[in-house]
Amino acid sequence: MKESPLFWPAQFKGNVLHVLDETQVPEKLHYVKVRNVKEAVKVIRNMKTRAFGQFLVVLSTFLLVLKNSKVRTPTALLSELEQTAEALNTSRPTFPFREVTSIVVAWAKDAIQKNIELRPFLEKNIQGYLMGIRQRRLQRVNEIAELLRDGDRVLTHCNVSGELAMASQIAREQRKFVQFFATETRPYFQGAKLTCWELQKAGTPVTLIADNAVGTVLADGLVDKVIVGSDRSCANGDIANKIGTYQIAVLAKEFGTPFYVLTQPSNKIPRGEDIPIEVRNPEELLTFGKKRIVAGKVNAFYPGFDVTPKELIEREIAINAQSR
Amino acid sequence: MKESPLFWPAQFKGNVLHVLDETQVPEKLHYVKVRNVKEAVKVIRNMKTRAFGQFLVVLSTFLLVLKNSKVRTPTALLSELEQTAEALNTSRPTFPFREVTSIVVAWAKDAIQKNIELRPFLEKNIQGYLMGIRQRRLQRVNEIAELLRDGDRVLTHCNVSGELAMASQIAREQRKFVQFFATETRPYFQGAKLTCWELQKAGTPVTLIADNAVGTVLADGLVDKVIVGSDRSCANGDIANKIGTYQIAVLAKEFGTPFYVLTQPSNKIPRGEDIPIEVRNPEELLTFGKKRIVAGKVNAFYPGFDVTPKELIEREIAINAQSR
Repeated sequence: MKESPLFWPAQFKGNVLHVLDETQVPEKLHYVKVRNVKEAVKVIRNMKTRAFGQFLVVLSTFLLVLKNSKVRTPTALLSELEQTAEALNTSRPTFPFREVTSIVVAWAKDAIQKNIELRPFLEKNIQGYLMGIRQRRLQRVNEIAELLRDGDRVLTHCNVSGELAMASQIAREQRKFVQFFATETRPYFQGAKLTCWELQKAGTPVTLIADNAVGTVLADGLVDKVIVGSDRSCANGDIANKIGTYQIAVLAKEFGTPFYVLTQPSNKIPRGEDIPIEVRNPEELLTFGKKRIVAGKVNAFYPGFDVTPKELIEREIAINAQSR
Repeated sequence: MKESPLFWPAQFKGNVLHVLDETQVPEKLHYVKVRNVKEAVKVIRNMKTRAFGQFLVVLSTFLLVLKNSKVRTPTALLSELEQTAEALNTSRPTFPFREVTSIVVAWAKDAIQKNIELRPFLEKNIQGYLMGIRQRRLQRVNEIAELLRDGDRVLTHCNVSGELAMASQIAREQRKFVQFFATETRPYFQGAKLTCWELQKAGTPVTLIADNAVGTVLADGLVDKVIVGSDRSCANGDIANKIGTYQIAVLAKEFGTPFYVLTQPSNKIPRGEDIPIEVRNPEELLTFGKKRIVAGKVNAFYPGFDVTPKELIEREIAINAQSR
């Protein structure tokens, strides 16, 4: 199986973290070099990498600090780690980085209290954490492959960072040949740019459709399954994902097409209506590239995400095997 | 009431037909000059004007021929008109221009048979035909205005050539203030480019949304009515319109939002499934402007239209007062 570059978009080469510049995919496979906290904050702030990549950058930045720090006492190192956490937490306002950085800081405090040597303990913990996530994501790729049947035509929306491309290869090794419909996913075209690219790289047939054509392909019986990712999960099973996911779920229900969601279950948010939905800058809709497509005094409403209620979801495929 | 340039996009100035180049709206209000059959075919073939504009060009081209023809006998003029009809019929493969050109040719034959002077008879008939359509469209604009209630938030898709912009002005004169949500309408952005432009020109508040956000705005109760146009009508009340219309109708039903369609009723096609759907060049989806947004060997499926069944339509607002 060929691993999609989107599956693990930030990797160490020696002491330098190489972060895939996802904004340049598919034109270029360019990696931004991150050597210190400042460069890590910059790569996050400039949105060079998306949610999962940012998560990898956040954890990896602590490894960079541990490698490069010149301080000699555990408390001085803790202070440096706390400053790192603070810089990462404030790099983008809406992302819950604190949930991750607080774990690392807690490990550091714990080690100091227990008089464990800080650097190797933290390095081992962070690397173990990363490897655990990698392992669980690979397990989920296999779970998706199991879900696929020979001849399946799968509709997907936005981009699920490598997992569908890799699952389609595993399925093929099992003599199950599948093909995909990818929505464009306006306004950022993640479907057209990322999903189409990684599926065709994986040798899996993929057909691009406008977001407007979802109803037609479902009604015409061209789709056997819908599989999408998710950004947030609620205690009650509702999920939030890229804008457009919800209407695909409603349409899938209308036509009896099962709708599967890749999730990272969490009980922190009770229900979908409690998820804060980021409303993005209207200019992102009013312009394309650098060019304005709308003339005159026109508003735009651009919610970045929408909420799909549990009732519309056939099955969750969870990262931590809590599928429901 | 200010008339939208999209409402009547082809007009005579002296002996020259001025055709609005809709591909340049909203950047420029540029009119292509059409002086003869060859230029008329060119303006249709280059898709400078859309369905209604093409219809105006087809009829007006006969007026150009009548004005400019040097032939002296009625049969020579008839032959010239038949050649004109043939050139227009074959200008674009999928448009049913023959339905219009055959009327003009039939008038000519009828006049010759009845020994009526050909030129003035045809000019009067064609101009009367055009004025009749204009009158009926203005009536429909008033009918749309009647439908609007003070405070209405109306969702529309693609572009309805001036009618909504004009109806919103009439409503305002009646102290009914309405606002619109316009979908982008990928891949050609008719909503972003044409609908937003003409509504804001008419002084009517308009908010652009991605095609992906329709489900969200309906679910959040932000829309009171949906009003869209149509390209074809069937005997049973099904309609065909720009791709995306169907899924909006399904979503509107789901949320109990009434879905109105501006139609041109016809009994030529029995049911929606009998309407031939033009599948357009995949390149139109794989590229944006001149730039390719998709890398590698990726297919695209771009049906230009979809069919909305009668059951999803609250009411048709017909051009010829056959509303049902």
